[in-house]
Amino acid sequence: MSVGPGGVASDKIEAVPQLRVVLAQVNPVVGDIAGNSERVVEAVREAVARGAHLVLLPEMVIPGYPIEDLALRSSFIEASRFAVQDLAATLADQGLGEPTVVVGYLDRAEGGTDRVGRPRGSPQNAAAVMTGGRVVARSAKHHLPNYGVFDEYRNFVPGEESLVVRVRGVDVSLAICEDIWQDGPSAAARAAGAGLLVVINGSPYEAQKDDVRGELCARRAAEAGCPLAYVNMVGGQDELVFDGDSLVCDQTGDVIARAPQFEEALLVVDLDLAAATDGLETSYQNLTIRRVDLGEPTVPTYQPLQPTTATWLEDEAEVYAALVLGVRDYVRKNGFGSVVFGLSGGIDSTLTAVIAADAIGGPNVHGISMPSQHSSPHSREDAADLARRIRADFRVVPIEPTVQEFRRSVELTGLAAENVQARTRGVIVMGVSNQEGQLALATGNKSELAVGYSTLYGDSVGGYAPLKDVPKTLLYRLAEWRNKASVERGETPPIPENCITKPPSAELAAGQLDSDSLPGYRLLDEILDAYVEHDRSALELVGQGFDEGVVTKVITLVDRAEYKRRQYPPGPKISARNFGRDRRLPITNRWREHLP
Amino acid sequence: MSVGPGGVASDKIEAVPQLRVVLAQVNPVVGDIAGNSERVVEAVREAVARGAHLVLLPEMVIPGYPIEDLALRSSFIEASRFAVQDLAATLADQGLGEPTVVVGYLDRAEGGTDRVGRPRGSPQNAAAVMTGGRVVARSAKHHLPNYGVFDEYRNFVPGEESLVVRVRGVDVSLAICEDIWQDGPSAAARAAGAGLLVVINGSPYEAQKDDVRGELCARRAAEAGCPLAYVNMVGGQDELVFDGDSLVCDQTGDVIARAPQFEEALLVVDLDLAAATDGLETSYQNLTIRRVDLGEPTVPTYQPLQPTTATWLEDEAEVYAALVLGVRDYVRKNGFGSVVFGLSGGIDSTLTAVIAADAIGGPNVHGISMPSQHSSPHSREDAADLARRIRADFRVVPIEPTVQEFRRSVELTGLAAENVQARTRGVIVMGVSNQEGQLALATGNKSELAVGYSTLYGDSVGGYAPLKDVPKTLLYRLAEWRNKASVERGETPPIPENCITKPPSAELAAGQLDSDSLPGYRLLDEILDAYVEHDRSALELVGQGFDEGVVTKVITLVDRAEYKRRQYPPGPKISARNFGRDRRLPITNRWREHLP
Repeated sequence: MSVGPGGVASDKIEAVPQLRVVLAQVNPVVGDIAGNSERVVEAVREAVARGAHLVLLPEMVIPGYPIEDLALRSSFIEASRFAVQDLAATLADQGLGEPTVVVGYLDRAEGGTDRVGRPRGSPQNAAAVMTGGRVVARSAKHHLPNYGVFDEYRNFVPGEESLVVRVRGVDVSLAICEDIWQDGPSAAARAAGAGLLVVINGSPYEAQKDDVRGELCARRAAEAGCPLAYVNMVGGQDELVFDGDSLVCDQTGDVIARAPQFEEALLVVDLDLAAATDGLETSYQNLTIRRVDLGEPTVPTYQPLQPTTATWLEDEAEVYAALVLGVRDYVRKNGFGSVVFGLSGGIDSTLTAVIAADAIGGPNVHGISMPSQHSSPHSREDAADLARRIRADFRVVPIEPTVQEFRRSVELTGLAAENVQARTRGVIVMGVSNQEGQLALATGNKSELAVGYSTLYGDSVGGYAPLKDVPKTLLYRLAEWRNKASVERGETPPIPENCITKPPSAELAAGQLDSDSLPGYRLLDEILDAYVEHDRSALELVGQGFDEGVVTKVITLVDRAEYKRRQYPPGPKISARNFGRDRRLPITNRWREHLP
Repeated sequence: MSVGPGGVASDKIEAVPQLRVVLAQVNPVVGDIAGNSERVVEAVREAVARGAHLVLLPEMVIPGYPIEDLALRSSFIEASRFAVQDLAATLADQGLGEPTVVVGYLDRAEGGTDRVGRPRGSPQNAAAVMTGGRVVARSAKHHLPNYGVFDEYRNFVPGEESLVVRVRGVDVSLAICEDIWQDGPSAAARAAGAGLLVVINGSPYEAQKDDVRGELCARRAAEAGCPLAYVNMVGGQDELVFDGDSLVCDQTGDVIARAPQFEEALLVVDLDLAAATDGLETSYQNLTIRRVDLGEPTVPTYQPLQPTTATWLEDEAEVYAALVLGVRDYVRKNGFGSVVFGLSGGIDSTLTAVIAADAIGGPNVHGISMPSQHSSPHSREDAADLARRIRADFRVVPIEPTVQEFRRSVELTGLAAENVQARTRGVIVMGVSNQEGQLALATGNKSELAVGYSTLYGDSVGGYAPLKDVPKTLLYRLAEWRNKASVERGETPPIPENCITKPPSAELAAGQLDSDSLPGYRLLDEILDAYVEHDRSALELVGQGFDEGVVTKVITLVDRAEYKRRQYPPGPKISARNFGRDRRLPITNRWREHLP
């Protein structure tokens, strides 16, 4: 605190109070309340060591996110509530009680009944503000996303207060994730006279979403008329990958600090902020503005640090990093140490292997070559070459004897005969997985899954599908980018050139090529992008210049394959609309778009 | 119209106008807009033949229900909107334009933008009122269910008007399904001075839900102060079964007419109703009351018919009927004529076979006995006996040679060796399905699925799982009920007694019994009911008297099996919480309830 002219301590001349804000981009595990609390303690410990006044942790960091219907279990809500009280005490016990810490957690609203009048526990997606060993304020998310992958209107009830906490003489306004995607919170922050708008997030990755997010934060900061600190979670959770990419904007909307993508990090930012004043608004639209004054003096003037801005990853690098993190976290958070899958020498299983090796280390990757009479001579060689390059375990299990035994048991011709080969491989992969304890991976890509070009219980077996949301053309770009990245580091590129250049084939019949059944992947992916990700009608597609026959064929294939997608394992979402929680269609569905 | 004392036509003395209301309980198919419209025309034709003044069809009967994210496709919305206009014209063209017809459909609200400001088409779950060749009024559902299996807040925007249509001198107030589960519509109907409250529904079956529904309708009728007509859809749609059970309550809440469960039917009811008066409320709470007067004279006095009340099915009969309808409609609506699955002689596959035979006819049921070295001698005999009784196709495919070939390929011991047997069977079932074109059925039950006592890609293969929501103990009750029903009809009971009495075994290892790995099914099902369907905590379970060790074991098994359930085929929901859209849990989830 500075000393005024008469030698009397005075806040009045502190025209520009300072705060060191630390955005702690951590990686929680859903359901691991004790472990997540420990992760928060460690992050706060490091933040304190770096002089933090205000430490921000992500949305729902205590229970993990998204918890889906765990929100409806009373015992889980109580465990989360208790953990937050316990966390406040633990921080103080460990000498970390001085800064103000904001953590996201699962709380319970008072009152509320469900549609048949039973008390429903009213779970809330909430933020707790703690300092000095106590939780001093709480606030709940106002806007509950219920589109795309989100079901928050199902799982939570909305908050009705806008919280402003006076931290070291600065009024800090709090919002949670979706809140800033809606109009309101920034205007509420301005109405409340906030000196800083804090937003805690669990915002999943989508390609190019970082651009959208940065622009949104800039706009909201300008609307609020104060800096905005946006902290995001990092890590994989089932089909979602949280990319971190936490950032701080100043009141003009310029991004002044940015954390790295896809890794745990602390972003430390010194901010000059407007001093809190009294006599401001007590409500904004339908929100009550709730004010809590921590009664602390402003921070004595200090020399600010230069803020850091992480370099953004280029497009392919970003998607690739998302896939690696998605695989690593699915494997590890589910208690596995290794993975197994069919390694055919084709581009799909090859890229899966390289991603897995980057995620958990080559020696933990087990590839099985399962040649049949239709496998090309180069397939096994390419697979073996790849395995050597990434130091993966590699074995060869010919399937022909078993396939013949199946054919002796039951008559199988045509597609049934093709499928039995893929299913024999599926049984072998699952057998090795059960015997040796690796997680099985499915190696299919989004284009195949879209048109049903895969065998149910064959190449689709596995607990996780790294390429599930990756269209075939992007998959090639990623493979080329990955090789280039190795070359730039002076390393051997992991992917044998032949895997990239040979024409795609399922190798389930003599001389078979994907192009026998499907349009070229470039054309296919363009139609799929328009139809699946952008809901374009058949008529619009033809209007865009696509051939009528091809459009009809592709969308019919897509519509008919819903039953296969429903039984497919989860995989990391990288697009605006994945085949998972993002796209929920009936299986029994006679709707077929007709061209006039 | 009656004639007054002076010989002048007068409505004034019609103190009690009459209406013949026909509730048309039909079975639409999702996406089949043209076919569903045709079904409506046929229902109206029959209603007209029976003298209807007002014909009520179910919620969303034109697009089918639930349409899930089809609601987000503009082309689908437009097709539904067009179909309703076309339907009104078609009815008039075919001489069916006189009665007032209410149909549920998918509409589009004016305006509305999504979170990033794009126009979002604003789909609405709506009702159209048509007569004389035109749509004369529309109304949209106010309360959008977003719990359990429902995602309507995701797919629709709510309506803001309460519609009252004056039909032949009676003010008819309209509500859609969930609306009457919430407070409001009945009070709005009273405020509007309605003479009849009409509710159109797509309300899925749950055991005992008919009781709840009847009580609710009674209460709402009394609140509204007028009779209530509740029409429900019938038929299977993926995991849902709509049970019909349409009903009419009088203004005191007595149920005066009820349609049969699980079949298409017209319920014809003559009602004496209060005459419409003017000068009533124009709004109720946040709803605008929108009034449309069709300008028709009241119906001349006629002799009313005696209302009919269908006999309610007893508990087991009701569940069984739901399963049969679910299987029949999944098979037929997806274009199949027959089914195939492993017929082991155990109770699960046996009951599956009998349900399938009742659904689509015994000769369309294909059972495959796939004995291994661990199969008991009676297994094949029981299966063959059952197949004879229900006239199913039956074949025997021994799996031992193929299993041995797998074991020559890769080392498989313990659980991996057990699983390879189940997966070999899975490949055979899918091979026959692919070769011969039957839909494969998975035969597992809810108890097994809960604790993960099944083999992924083994006994779980198939497009539909008839017993997915049936606990093992209920399954035995259904088997006994089904045999008893045959005996009462003087027929041979379909299920060999031995299938019911022998101890359950997966027969994947020598002398194996389910009871080696699991608690007895009676105990297991009680714990599962409390934990899965009622979200009871471990502590509460122990408080209810269950053994701590058993509770911990069971709930740990349940929590760990989520990944298996995620890849399981859909099956008909019969409980308050199925393993499907009703229960959405993360796979990656470290939450384990600990007992203190």
